[in-house]
Amino acid sequence: MMSEQSTMPVNPRLYTFLAGQTGKWVITVNKPYIGAAWPSAQRLDIINGDVSPLPTGAAWAIKGVTSNDRYVSHEEKTQLAAKQSALGRPEATHAAIIPIRKNAKWWALTPDDRRAIFEQQSRHNTIGMKYLPAIARRLHHCRDLSVQEPFDFITLFDYEKKDAEAFEELVAALRETEEWEYVDWEIDLRLVRDSA
Amino acid sequence: MMSEQSTMPVNPRLYTFLAGQTGKWVITVNKPYIGAAWPSAQRLDIINGDVSPLPTGAAWAIKGVTSNDRYVSHEEKTQLAAKQSALGRPEATHAAIIPIRKNAKWWALTPDDRRAIFEQQSRHNTIGMKYLPAIARRLHHCRDLSVQEPFDFITLFDYEKKDAEAFEELVAALRETEEWEYVDWEIDLRLVRDSA
Repeated sequence: MMSEQSTMPVNPRLYTFLAGQTGKWVITVNKPYIGAAWPSAQRLDIINGDVSPLPTGAAWAIKGVTSNDRYVSHEEKTQLAAKQSALGRPEATHAAIIPIRKNAKWWALTPDDRRAIFEQQSRHNTIGMKYLPAIARRLHHCRDLSVQEPFDFITLFDYEKKDAEAFEELVAALRETEEWEYVDWEIDLRLVRDSA
Repeated sequence: MMSEQSTMPVNPRLYTFLAGQTGKWVITVNKPYIGAAWPSAQRLDIINGDVSPLPTGAAWAIKGVTSNDRYVSHEEKTQLAAKQSALGRPEATHAAIIPIRKNAKWWALTPDDRRAIFEQQSRHNTIGMKYLPAIARRLHHCRDLSVQEPFDFITLFDYEKKDAEAFEELVAALRETEEWEYVDWEIDLRLVRDSA
């Protein structure tokens, strides 16, 4: 059973963010917040699985897996679980995809030091909690995939149009924290669901 | 640059453990400690990179990536770094590969709870520290690769022949800890370097 690469199943937690001329989401913003620009595209689809090779007309694809929690405490998780909503609410017509790369200094830190920066100093979970349940969120990890990805994380958010301003507040608050001193590449993608 | 899967570079931290009829290491033991048996093979090579498709004669391949630290504290890392040796010492003619899968209950825990089991209760780092620098170690993570792997971790150890008994003591001590209640599949592979 192990003798052919082609027969190995794709990680069921893998998601592909596939941009091109087609897709359920219209890309309304694509600009770097830190670092180099990212190639433009008109539309995007989010696929649970791998897409390989990319279809004709694809502009780019980035991939990540959902995984076990990394920096949330037991108590925080209980609080988050009580407030959070799932992605894909019919009224959540707006979305954001924020691919991020952290620098080598971050990755060389031990987990206690990373957790201290993440929450004790930067209040990452606490800031996010303020925007629940309006902003739904799913984090994807890219760094330990088999293939080298350009980013370390891809976070997907969705929300109603009326919460778009609150979402930008959340992003701005996180970017003022000490944690963000370790971010060396970050792209702002904003999307609107195609209702056609 | 992102338009072809085939042009994406392999993760530079990816290692393939390739077993078959050829290889630098002779497999002397292959038996399950917990769970189902693993296919037998005569020899094994450890390759920094991907091997795809597998060569003719290959028995199996398992893969993992080295990654950032997950449960070691800053203080413990400093102590470990002062004592540990690197893999590949010429005199380290003996090796062990221990693929492990942990159960869903482990992965659903928050990191503070996992850390408490790992070190406060199970003293995983403390136990490992006693066997430094004789036993060199490298941990590979498999769970967040693009393709579904059979195990969550592959740990590779190497040591001199005279330390083989101490190594088995180390493994036995870890298996008596609370952490091991979360292990649901574990294979013992022992290897001797082919001096021919």
